[in-house]
This record gives sequence, C-alpha cells and structure tokens, in this order.
Amino acid sequence: MLKSNKNQLKRRKVVYLDYASGALSAEANPGGIHEISMKEKNKLENARATITRILGAHSYEIIFTSGATEANNLAIQGIVLKFWELSSQVGAKLPKLPHIITTNIEHASVLEVCRHLEETKQAEVTYVEVERNGIVDPKKIKKAIKPNTVLVSVMYANNEIGTIQPISEIAKEVRHFNKMNSLGHRPTGEAQKVFFHTDATQAINYLPIRVEKLGVDLMSFNGAKIYGPKGVGILYVKKNTPIKKIMFGGNQEFGLRPGTENVAFATSIAKALQEVEKIKNKEFARLTKLRDYFFEQLAQIFFFSGFPATQRQSLKKGNLGELAINGDLKNRLPNNINITIPGIPSDLLVIELSARGIMAAAKSACKSGDGKASHVIEAINKDIKDTDGSLRFSLGRSTTKKDIEYTVKSLSEILQKLKRWYN
Amino acid sequence: MLKSNKNQLKRRKVVYLDYASGALSAEANPGGIHEISMKEKNKLENARATITRILGAHSYEIIFTSGATEANNLAIQGIVLKFWELSSQVGAKLPKLPHIITTNIEHASVLEVCRHLEETKQAEVTYVEVERNGIVDPKKIKKAIKPNTVLVSVMYANNEIGTIQPISEIAKEVRHFNKMNSLGHRPTGEAQKVFFHTDATQAINYLPIRVEKLGVDLMSFNGAKIYGPKGVGILYVKKNTPIKKIMFGGNQEFGLRPGTENVAFATSIAKALQEVEKIKNKEFARLTKLRDYFFEQLAQIFFFSGFPATQRQSLKKGNLGELAINGDLKNRLPNNINITIPGIPSDLLVIELSARGIMAAAKSACKSGDGKASHVIEAINKDIKDTDGSLRFSLGRSTTKKDIEYTVKSLSEILQKLKRWYN
Repeated sequence: MLKSNKNQLKRRKVVYLDYASGALSAEANPGGIHEISMKEKNKLENARATITRILGAHSYEIIFTSGATEANNLAIQGIVLKFWELSSQVGAKLPKLPHIITTNIEHASVLEVCRHLEETKQAEVTYVEVERNGIVDPKKIKKAIKPNTVLVSVMYANNEIGTIQPISEIAKEVRHFNKMNSLGHRPTGEAQKVFFHTDATQAINYLPIRVEKLGVDLMSFNGAKIYGPKGVGILYVKKNTPIKKIMFGGNQEFGLRPGTENVAFATSIAKALQEVEKIKNKEFARLTKLRDYFFEQLAQIFFFSGFPATQRQSLKKGNLGELAINGDLKNRLPNNINITIPGIPSDLLVIELSARGIMAAAKSACKSGDGKASHVIEAINKDIKDTDGSLRFSLGRSTTKKDIEYTVKSLSEILQKLKRWYN
Repeated sequence: MLKSNKNQLKRRKVVYLDYASGALSAEANPGGIHEISMKEKNKLENARATITRILGAHSYEIIFTSGATEANNLAIQGIVLKFWELSSQVGAKLPKLPHIITTNIEHASVLEVCRHLEETKQAEVTYVEVERNGIVDPKKIKKAIKPNTVLVSVMYANNEIGTIQPISEIAKEVRHFNKMNSLGHRPTGEAQKVFFHTDATQAINYLPIRVEKLGVDLMSFNGAKIYGPKGVGILYVKKNTPIKKIMFGGNQEFGLRPGTENVAFATSIAKALQEVEKIKNKEFARLTKLRDYFFEQLAQIFFFSGFPATQRQSLKKGNLGELAINGDLKNRLPNNINITIPGIPSDLLVIELSARGIMAAAKSACKSGDGKASHVIEAINKDIKDTDGSLRFSLGRSTTKKDIEYTVKSLSEILQKLKRWYN
C-alpha cells in the first residue's frame, strides 16, 4: 500500500499497480486513464495553459521538449522532414530542394542542424552575415529569400554577445514575401510559404515574448536559462505550420514529441515563466544600469592599467582599442558584458577570476575546432587574431553593484599580474 | 552575492556571472571552466562512472539522453545516419540500402522509427513475428539476416506482457554471422557488421544487465522505470559502433548528444541504478511469488464468477479459455500480469478499478489507431476480436500480498456487476 498518495486520494485505499508505466506513483504516467494518471494529465495541461497565456498562443501550439537544443532541432529538422514528406506525395508541386536562411552567429543547435541538412543534401542553406555590431540587417534577410525558401531562423538575442535581433522587422519581410507569393508569384501550397523561427532562449528573461506581436511561427526556449528546471524546453509551433516530429514513438505532444511527458518539469517551467513575466520590466531596468556601470568601471581599470586616456573616451562607441566590447552597446541584453582583451588568453582570465570566486565564461578565438572557439566573435571581427579570445560576464537576479566592483577590481589585479608575461 | 554556494565554496566570496550558461549557479553548466562548472563536471563524470561499473562498460560508452524514447531513436536513427555518411564517402563499398531486423512487439519508439526509416527510404526493415507466447525465436532472427543488414533491435522484456526475450542467444547468432562475414562472405568494413541493440527499459529492474555478458552493442533504458528521475535515459554504445548523433548542436556526450548536460539527473539515475542492483535478486524472488499468487487468485475468481472448473486447471498452461493470460508464464518479468477478459472493455475495467483506488493499465484490441490499441496482443493472438482488450497490472517495490487480494476481490465484484450488461 502506498502512503505517498494519501494527500491525493484521502481516506481511500490506493493500490498502485502501474509500475511499468512509471515506477513512482506520485509522478504517474499522464498517458493512462486511471485516477492518478488523470490528475497528472490535468497538471500537465494546466502548465501548458499558463505558458499559452503568457505567449498569447493556443495550447496545442506549445510542445514540451528536453531543452532548447531539441526545440531548435525539432523546428528546423521538422520543417524539412515535412517538406520531404509532402514532396513525396502524388501531384506535389514543390521545389526540388528546400532552402533555409539563417545568420552566421546562431547557436550551435541551429548552425549544426543546418550544416547536417546541407551535408545530407536535405536542404540548402544561406548564412546571412551580421554587421560588425553583431546585428543582422532585415534587408539582407529579405534579399536572401528565394522561390524555394521554406524557413528563416534568426535568434532573438545572442548567447555570447547579447545582441538583440530585429525579429519583428524580419517577420514583416517574411510576411510581405508570403503575401506577394500568395498573389501568384510562385505555386502556392502550405509548405511553400516561408516560415519564421526564432531561438529565444537568451531573450525570454528580458524581452517581449507575445508570439503574435513578434510575428514568429516557431519559437524555442528552455527552463535552465529562466531560473527553472534543466532538461525541459519549449517549442511554440503556430497553427498550420507544416512540421513533422524528428523522434518517433508515442503520440504525445500533439504527435510532435514522443516519450512520457514530464509533468513536474512542465509545471516548473510554467512557474518560472510566470515569475519572469512578473519581474521582467524591473529586472530589465535594474540590470541595464548595472551593465552600463560595469562598462564604465571597465573603462576605469583599462585607464588605470595604463591604457591611453583617449581610448577611455571611446568606450561608448564600442571601440576601446586595446579593450574591445563585442556587440552593439544599445541593442543588447541588459545582462551581457562581452569583451576582448587582446593578447591575453581568455581561458586564463576565467581561471584567475574563478580563483577569486568569480564565475565567468570564455571563448578562444582559435579556429582549431575544440568546440570552445567563438564563431560569433569571428563573425563580427574579421581581423581577429588567434590570441584574441572573448570574456563574457552575464548578470542575473542575484547580481549587485558590489559584485561588479569586486569583479572589476579583481580583473584589474589579474591583468596587472599577467601583463608581466603577456605584454 | 550568492549564498546558495556557501557549502561549495566556504569562507569565500562568490560572484556568479555566468547566468547566460545557466541561471541557477548551484546547477552551473558543466561545459564551463570556472570552479562551479568544474564541480558540476566532476559530479557528472562520477555518475557516469557508477553506471559504467554496473553495466561493465567504459565511461565513454554511456550517453545520457532525455529518456528511453530518445535513446531508442538515437540507437536506430544514429546507425542509419552513420551508414549514409559512410556510404557517401569516396570509395565506400557499402550496400545500397541498410537493412534492420526487429520484432513485431517492440515499443512504439522502436517500431515508429523503423516505419519512418522505411517511409523515407533510408532503410528496409524486417519485422520478425514473435511466437504465440510473445517470445521471438533466435533462429528466425538469424534467418532474417541479409548481406545488407546493419542492425538487429530486439527488446529485452516487453512493456505490455512482460515476456523476456533470449537476448544472449540472439547476440550469439549476430556474432556468428559477423564472424562468418569477416572470413570473407561479404566486403568488410565497420558499417557492414551487424550491430545489436536492445531496449532494456522494462528489464533493468529485474534482469542481468552486464553488457558484455548480454552481448549487445547498444542498450537503452530510462530513469522513470527504475524509481529514478523522469526525463533522463541512457544509451550504452559499445566502442567502435558506427553511430551518428540525430540532434545537432554542441559536442556534449562524446559528440553523440548535444545540449547542456543535466547533472542532477545523471546523479539521480546513477543512484537509482545502484539501488536497483542492490535489491535486484531479492525483489525478483519476492515479486515472482506475488505475481504467481496473483495468477492463482485470478483462477479463483474466474472459477467463482462461474467459469468451468476445467478452465481453472489449465491456468498454468497460459490458456484459461474465458480468461487468457497474455504472454509466456515462465519467461516473464516477475512484476507483470497481463490478461484478456473477452467481451468486457478493458478501459472500463481500469476506470472501475480506479474508482476503488486501484491503478492499472489497459489497451483496447481495436485497430482503429487511437494510439491505445495493442499491437502486442494482436501479434500473439491472430484471432483477437475487437472486444478483447488487455488489462495490465504491474507490481513494484510497495506491492504487498494484501494489495493483490484486494485487487482480485475488487475485480471479482466489478465483473459480477458488469456481467449483467456485457454477458
């Protein structure tokens, strides 16, 4: 007799004999029809409803995945798989090869999917280059659209340099093309419209995410980046988007994602998203101030460390000379600081900072492909040298002004020490 | 300043500025190089080492996934993707189309992958039929192997009827074929060996799982079925098995599974597996007794419900006439009871049982494809009628003799009530 369910089913004998569906009765498989399953199913749908409300979507448009990587894979591979399924049907009038447009600073879970689709000849891909400030020009996206384009995938905000892409403007270009198309510019058919996907993983905490307003057909994000659980992601899939599952099995998640649903995770990510929405504006303002304070402080140390005063003046133009700020200063997440200190390995800086209790992240500039090199820094700076890594500080709910002062002071000390060897 | 890390980093200032990698510093991204990341990385590798020890594997052979469904998809799609990658290389001497052998009672996450690969002309598949007792004949697997066979996938134990497949014997047939093959029967090459995958999800709790002894190259299972966390699965991939990732992104999990690693989950599933191993023999013996007691008790009610005495005698032969036990009685998981009560909808039985606090599972026999029909029952009973659903009771750690007595008594009452309408 299970005691753990006494709260759920009070004053009643409970005999759980569904261990093959899930060993823990408190987290019973929501796919069953007995009472505990039905309760789990209800919790799952409540979580979905919460997310639906926040995004301004329909409940059948919210697909739970194992993370943003899977959500991005599902969005892009799923559109292409569906294209091929449709094109194999009798009488299908589709282009020979689907075309995808993306940018050269997307997350690996978008870029690597695109490369795989190219390699296996399932799709052709255009990688639109971002400008030097790390922002893509919507006109260049527009120009890249071809008769066989089926998908545009542009991230909402970049994970390394925090630049915010003009999602609504890109959406407008896509809509405009689709409208022209429907007027007869090419054979119509659902799969031949251009659909628009955005990886919103880094943006969710700080930017508007009503899907209608953004104008996206597909949007990915995950729990781990919004103070929620790891191991859960969400793909928003707008009604009538032609997409196929990429893993096969049961019919869960409206047939788009097989595997027993993770109710606890769905509930947690819904709660996390609610909290994000509640404090979004306040956190945006607070962190924007802190971020700019961080940049000001950096100008101070680089001055005191012996950099010429003139360089300090140019901080706000995003060009410090010996200290480069990577990415646009204005269209930038409020929690992102990404700098390059030429000649000093950024890995070493992270380790030195860590020894002082400061946890930051680094990418090398080297192109040897150990997985830690930055294709983003390379994209915005063609003249980058092998020694020019990048150092990222990303702020969050617990970050204080004191943290920043301590960090900049520590960085100053570390640099003064390292200068002996590296300058 | 974060206080939650005070246990990890005592007496030290900690400034977490890596929110973009993961918002909760206590669960920092193990992909980083700062101190908290390194600690997470250590925990991850400790978990992997525990699992490695239990399976008798190497640490680089353990791939964490989001569940058994993903693990099965990775095993089967991964082998086929790799085949096509190798076959596209210059000078590759591979068959035109890879061939997969499986059975007709596999889990949907194997069968649906196979169907997808057939539909998209990526592979051809032979579905070997199991015998009437729900067990596959290894000789039939052997007979199905063709020059272009690359994979055999046979589940260790069935999720519906609990039958245990002769995995070691099938492995022997595969090894024998590969040995003959290496002697010159067909062009050699890694991708042309036959590899052997087993979905061990339902078997892990009760059966031996040393991979070397089983003779498998790939083995899947998950956390939810072994009293561990939901949302995590494992794919064992033997060294030198030619497999490619099916989702694309980062280089985590030895390049086979992208996405930030879920350290908490890895740790929990390792612990769950340790506990399983500790009590495996004891639970096997205890549940075998309970299961057989359940069958005995069923014979009692079916006798008292008006079934002829002769039918009761034949219980142990697996043919009760009006009460059929589905699947072999001997080569069966110790926790599985699966019966068909002709003429009475099994869904209705589950609902009636649930109203009495008993949580069981049902599948209909109808082939209309609502996702709840049983391809397994259909496979072992060709004469099945639309009204012959199946009812599954699966026992577990908390199940007692009293639970079974209460369940059988309740079932008896329910049937006596329903007989008025359905007989």
